[in-house]
Amino acid sequence: MARKIVIIGAHAAGTDAASAARKTDRKAEITMITDQKVAGYSPCGIPFVIGRHIKSFDDLIVFPPSYYRMMKIDLRLETKAKKINTEEKTVEIEDKSGKSETLQYDSLIIATGAYPFVPPIKGRDKDGVFTLRTIDDGRKIDQALEKAKSAVVIGAGLIGLETAVAFVERGVNTTVVELLPQICPAMLDKDTANLVQKNLEEKGLKIITGKGVDEILGDDHVNAVSVAGEEIPADLVIVATGVRPNVQLAKDAGIEIGETGGIKTNMRMETSVKDVYAAGDCVESINLITGRPMLSQLGTTAVRQAKVAGINAAGGYAVFMGSLGSCVTRFFDLEVGATGLTEFMANRFGIETVSGTITSKTRADYYPGGKSIRVKIIVDKDTERIIGGQIVGGEEVTQRINALSFAIQKQMTVRELAKADTCYAPPVNETWEPMVLAAELALRRL
Amino acid sequence: MARKIVIIGAHAAGTDAASAARKTDRKAEITMITDQKVAGYSPCGIPFVIGRHIKSFDDLIVFPPSYYRMMKIDLRLETKAKKINTEEKTVEIEDKSGKSETLQYDSLIIATGAYPFVPPIKGRDKDGVFTLRTIDDGRKIDQALEKAKSAVVIGAGLIGLETAVAFVERGVNTTVVELLPQICPAMLDKDTANLVQKNLEEKGLKIITGKGVDEILGDDHVNAVSVAGEEIPADLVIVATGVRPNVQLAKDAGIEIGETGGIKTNMRMETSVKDVYAAGDCVESINLITGRPMLSQLGTTAVRQAKVAGINAAGGYAVFMGSLGSCVTRFFDLEVGATGLTEFMANRFGIETVSGTITSKTRADYYPGGKSIRVKIIVDKDTERIIGGQIVGGEEVTQRINALSFAIQKQMTVRELAKADTCYAPPVNETWEPMVLAAELALRRL
Repeated sequence: MARKIVIIGAHAAGTDAASAARKTDRKAEITMITDQKVAGYSPCGIPFVIGRHIKSFDDLIVFPPSYYRMMKIDLRLETKAKKINTEEKTVEIEDKSGKSETLQYDSLIIATGAYPFVPPIKGRDKDGVFTLRTIDDGRKIDQALEKAKSAVVIGAGLIGLETAVAFVERGVNTTVVELLPQICPAMLDKDTANLVQKNLEEKGLKIITGKGVDEILGDDHVNAVSVAGEEIPADLVIVATGVRPNVQLAKDAGIEIGETGGIKTNMRMETSVKDVYAAGDCVESINLITGRPMLSQLGTTAVRQAKVAGINAAGGYAVFMGSLGSCVTRFFDLEVGATGLTEFMANRFGIETVSGTITSKTRADYYPGGKSIRVKIIVDKDTERIIGGQIVGGEEVTQRINALSFAIQKQMTVRELAKADTCYAPPVNETWEPMVLAAELALRRL
Repeated sequence: MARKIVIIGAHAAGTDAASAARKTDRKAEITMITDQKVAGYSPCGIPFVIGRHIKSFDDLIVFPPSYYRMMKIDLRLETKAKKINTEEKTVEIEDKSGKSETLQYDSLIIATGAYPFVPPIKGRDKDGVFTLRTIDDGRKIDQALEKAKSAVVIGAGLIGLETAVAFVERGVNTTVVELLPQICPAMLDKDTANLVQKNLEEKGLKIITGKGVDEILGDDHVNAVSVAGEEIPADLVIVATGVRPNVQLAKDAGIEIGETGGIKTNMRMETSVKDVYAAGDCVESINLITGRPMLSQLGTTAVRQAKVAGINAAGGYAVFMGSLGSCVTRFFDLEVGATGLTEFMANRFGIETVSGTITSKTRADYYPGGKSIRVKIIVDKDTERIIGGQIVGGEEVTQRINALSFAIQKQMTVRELAKADTCYAPPVNETWEPMVLAAELALRRL
């Protein structure tokens, strides 16, 4: 009899898990459910649609309905998973008409993602206050922007800043308010964050750090936000104060939740319950440096976990070793990326660090069009291994982050990086690669 | 008494050796001699001046005279090193007026570079036949181009192709003739080379492979080149059939020359004679994969060796571990890079290989402006380690080569690369990094 695989969730993790399962078992019956109207789209693209870099939200649909048909995946849209019964190996589902059904599974994959966390700010229920997670959210915000002259974004993480940048690109007077003393606190150290903030401010984005939002003001509709006594006009407010793993369904089924609040899995992405796997923003990963659980909540981590979950759920064998949290984005014409631990996080884990930071150019000094780039390398003082990197520049940031990620994964020491063989040509790099120079500076501080 | 350091050669290797020596020993007397009129320029930039990307040849001077003054380096231009006496520890030099002098050294650094090898083609002495190595060569070619309608470049290595591309950019009808059956034979496997060739041909460059030049035709001045019986019109001919290390001076002094024809050194860049160091295009390097000597002859290798030579010559301690030959260039709007061994070379060294090749995009599929990129990963079948990579794409090639170079240097296996943590954002990458996908394809062939 064909293996029955049920997948809850139909975005990066759900779809990649389904694809991997299908490739592993050609005959499996794969059913995928999502409570959303659209499956297989890329939420990472939403701010770039709002900023008009991408024409329409429909463009974000990476896997159209035809893909699921081709892969013989029974996709159920606008359908809720109500209950998992791990004894009976069933999932109770309910479609939008209210019709219930009980699906039997041999393997279950939970890819329920995360939801935006909204702190209990007074006035958060007013019209014009949004979170940004789904295409529907994107469409609503896009529409609200048509009439908005001013906006406040609460939270200066990647999603908050990407959204705020899009607002500025749309000509809206935008202020970001961050409670912590710097932007991107999970991704960047303060020195790097300050450089990024300066660049964003030069482009017209207002940023307030170290202050909380006291209240969202207005009658039915928001018209301002009160920050430390000051009123900031806002026709639109985005709450981007982070996301929390969607684990209620798993929790109710008795599946173990980890200390980070994400679903706990082993290296095969199997939860505490046999034949139940999980992947994506709802699970916790092991940090490859600290060996401790973390919430990665990145698309890249999600698809890698999903592939492993899908292969194992379909009877294959694969393991996921963990995450470094390598990430990157573009704000206006500035690329910002990071991998591994910040100095702040490393110190919190008891790792003493030294760092090396250099500002260089992306092309030979004499080659026109070169852009400024700043590379920071973070080193474990004891082992001399590279444990983190932060790069800000006009181009060529992404793959340097990947290069540092490879270095960290292979436990490269700062001495090795300072001697590394790199490539160069006048139109694409300086003779001395900035990563190598940054390593040399870190080395001198050991 | 102050240490006396003499350096023969004043470009990438010479200047970086001098800088490293100065930083190591603030009081040393450093004398640097070059037979050229200008020191401290970047020959790598010459084709890009000819192609009008860079305004003038003078822009290529990375280290102006003021730099040498600041570093207290006694720079002697247009001065020849006539003889090294390793017993007496002296170098006989002669300036352009014919005046001789004998310099005493405690440490000597030979950075004599390489010279273009010109095969014995009939007619190679005609007017209008050039090699390209120095700024003077560049200026002459630039001038000759003013009147040229057609050109032939003999040799399809990096320098030959970069020059040919510049000629096309200048509106000159240009044909490249390569004796071997493919372009870039030292850098790329045939599949990658074919893709590059196709791109170059689409831009208007004519390429003939697998055929030699029989004769350079014309009276005093070249007017055509004969290739396998066919006459190709040419007002200008560039011979770019590789370079040979400048080792005569070292050889005459009894310094050991390696099997590759380059000066042999230990890891400290010290030659067979105590206190005599060498660096740059005149020396051989150890290939980090095969452990065998190679001629790297890249600017990046030169500066790394020079730094080590300079530190040691000044009484410090540093080692150079070897080279992977990582290199990159840009032809029109195409970036081409490679690191490690080609499949062809690996097989010649008795390494059985598998490879994985994927064509992807440089941005999310839905993000406008993404360019095609092709990544090839070469794997040692026995150890499963990555031993080579070749990348061709519209952008983001250079740092992927660096990432693969790091992977090779840290002996990453293809299994590890297929699981690697990488970063992504819609404007700068696909969710699944192409290097990771290529590794996965290679993995399936193991």
